[in-house]
Amino acid sequence: MRETLADWRPAIDEAIADLVPRDVDADYLESFFGDPTYEYDSGGIQRALSTPLWDLLDRGGKRWRAVLFLVFVEGFGEDPADYVHYACIPEILHNGTIIVDDVEDGATIRRGERALHHVYGHDIALNAGNAMYFLPLKVLTEDPGDLPAERRLAAYEMLMYELNRTHLGQGMDICWHNERAVRVGVDEYLEMCACKTGCLARIVGRLAAIITGQPDDVEQAVATYAELTAVAFQIGDDILDVEHSLGRAGDFGKEFGNDIREGKKTLLVIHAIEESPPERAERLQAILGADSNTDEEIAEALAIIEDAGSLEYAREFALDLAATAREEIDRLAFDDETTRKLHEFTEFVIEREA
Amino acid sequence: MRETLADWRPAIDEAIADLVPRDVDADYLESFFGDPTYEYDSGGIQRALSTPLWDLLDRGGKRWRAVLFLVFVEGFGEDPADYVHYACIPEILHNGTIIVDDVEDGATIRRGERALHHVYGHDIALNAGNAMYFLPLKVLTEDPGDLPAERRLAAYEMLMYELNRTHLGQGMDICWHNERAVRVGVDEYLEMCACKTGCLARIVGRLAAIITGQPDDVEQAVATYAELTAVAFQIGDDILDVEHSLGRAGDFGKEFGNDIREGKKTLLVIHAIEESPPERAERLQAILGADSNTDEEIAEALAIIEDAGSLEYAREFALDLAATAREEIDRLAFDDETTRKLHEFTEFVIEREA
Repeated sequence: MRETLADWRPAIDEAIADLVPRDVDADYLESFFGDPTYEYDSGGIQRALSTPLWDLLDRGGKRWRAVLFLVFVEGFGEDPADYVHYACIPEILHNGTIIVDDVEDGATIRRGERALHHVYGHDIALNAGNAMYFLPLKVLTEDPGDLPAERRLAAYEMLMYELNRTHLGQGMDICWHNERAVRVGVDEYLEMCACKTGCLARIVGRLAAIITGQPDDVEQAVATYAELTAVAFQIGDDILDVEHSLGRAGDFGKEFGNDIREGKKTLLVIHAIEESPPERAERLQAILGADSNTDEEIAEALAIIEDAGSLEYAREFALDLAATAREEIDRLAFDDETTRKLHEFTEFVIEREA
Repeated sequence: MRETLADWRPAIDEAIADLVPRDVDADYLESFFGDPTYEYDSGGIQRALSTPLWDLLDRGGKRWRAVLFLVFVEGFGEDPADYVHYACIPEILHNGTIIVDDVEDGATIRRGERALHHVYGHDIALNAGNAMYFLPLKVLTEDPGDLPAERRLAAYEMLMYELNRTHLGQGMDICWHNERAVRVGVDEYLEMCACKTGCLARIVGRLAAIITGQPDDVEQAVATYAELTAVAFQIGDDILDVEHSLGRAGDFGKEFGNDIREGKKTLLVIHAIEESPPERAERLQAILGADSNTDEEIAEALAIIEDAGSLEYAREFALDLAATAREEIDRLAFDDETTRKLHEFTEFVIEREA
């Protein structure tokens, strides 16, 4: 394994460029997509596919889904260098969902720059994002690891299962977003996270297990580890939004309380509504359901969440999930170095910066 | 085989309802998507998935992709009743692309009613459309035909190949749409159609061949037949838009020349620009590239296309493609009844109503 996880990034980006090169030409199109029936327009495909994909990737992102995949592969006793192309599968899928989510959520900023649909138009952005749901699966067909047919079949079936659940999770999230009232409880919130964010993480673990031929119980354990870690991260995000907003609530002109402005039903909000006195719970509901809010209303909502102890509750919850994730790993026979790396992934749940 | 092709529609809709029931409940969710980690919100999933899907299907549509699949299956000597669930795969995929295309194109009307993103919001519509790229593939996992593993693997690989090319085609189309000048020639136009429309048709033929275990040359022949027929249909659509507009150009207040208003680079437009005297070709380019057009300008563009003989050229072209499609079928050892049905599919290319 390379010295630090970040050392893998150039190799991962090189493998992504094998799938979708920065400069598209007819040779690439024929080798990747097959002979054209008539004639490809490589200039059009460059602008429709490669340019937006690399724009997003070049904005940063830690490629942690690809790196986590390679940690698993090494933990399973294989040389990760042989599996870098497979590592691109969850990474490109994830970046595709980001583009599509940003269109669905009407986001304006992504990784510090204008969201892709604001740069290229929503038609190009959406089609590129959707193409990224299928492009990386080509790795399974090209089969650089010369895998037995049953592993390739298992990989496709796993991917279809998890991608179906990803759309369930996104569907629930969008629905709640569009509803004014907070109708759901903690378990439904966690299920939404487990589907929407967790399934892409599960793909990381399950794909590594399937491709290297691990038994079912190992595949399930790494899937659970990845799902729990992803849900804990999501809760961490929700906490950071509130903490960041509480710190900023005095600075006029600064954006704060974004999740509340968007009416997001986070774990903190669900907890605060369940635990606050009725009139304060109703007030929080009203602020979340309003078409727009003043800064004072946002500050009021943040105070209701803080007073309900929802930050402590959510922090404990996320830390518990991360601890359970580590237990899943400890039950497996990984070497100490792999176990250490996998523990490390669960440790940034709350501590990281916004 | 049922007496007429339309007789299959109730069985097809029943099979679709097995995949996505009109009324979603926890039992369905658990049986189809697996046990929840926490708890599903079946009400949310109903509104996010089932309601928009059935709204679109209930507006009509001939389910011809499913019917064509069943014609092939019977032609290959199998009982189509045993394969109705597989017939849903191309049908649901097709309806998913319609929802997504309408968002990408900013369409307002679909099958005589408001486009789905105008009814449910673009977030719900998009997520439902994208979910329909993965939902039907569950049939391969559930495996009602008890297929050998190599056929299931071949089906996944074929689907990924064709769905990748579908996004290439859509990418080319969107790019040209956004460009003002007509930059591409006939071969690139045909390639766009072959990818965008043809690949979904190819899935119909190839899936039927793979699932029933046909040799490669048969799979290739039915794929070519389906692709040619789809491209011919697309050209037929473009012809009908111009013919319909020429007939209506005198009626004030009626919409006409939609393709020209949208700046679509159809086979007729490409031909007219290549064959018209330079100043008329430039005039057509200018009208297509303008942000908006008067009715007089649309009538002028239509006249340039008509005078260039582009209607006759496109009609001949589409009829040639349909004839070549029939030749592909004639080389195969289908029974007369199947051959007749497959010929029938190619005969509505130009003759159908707009």
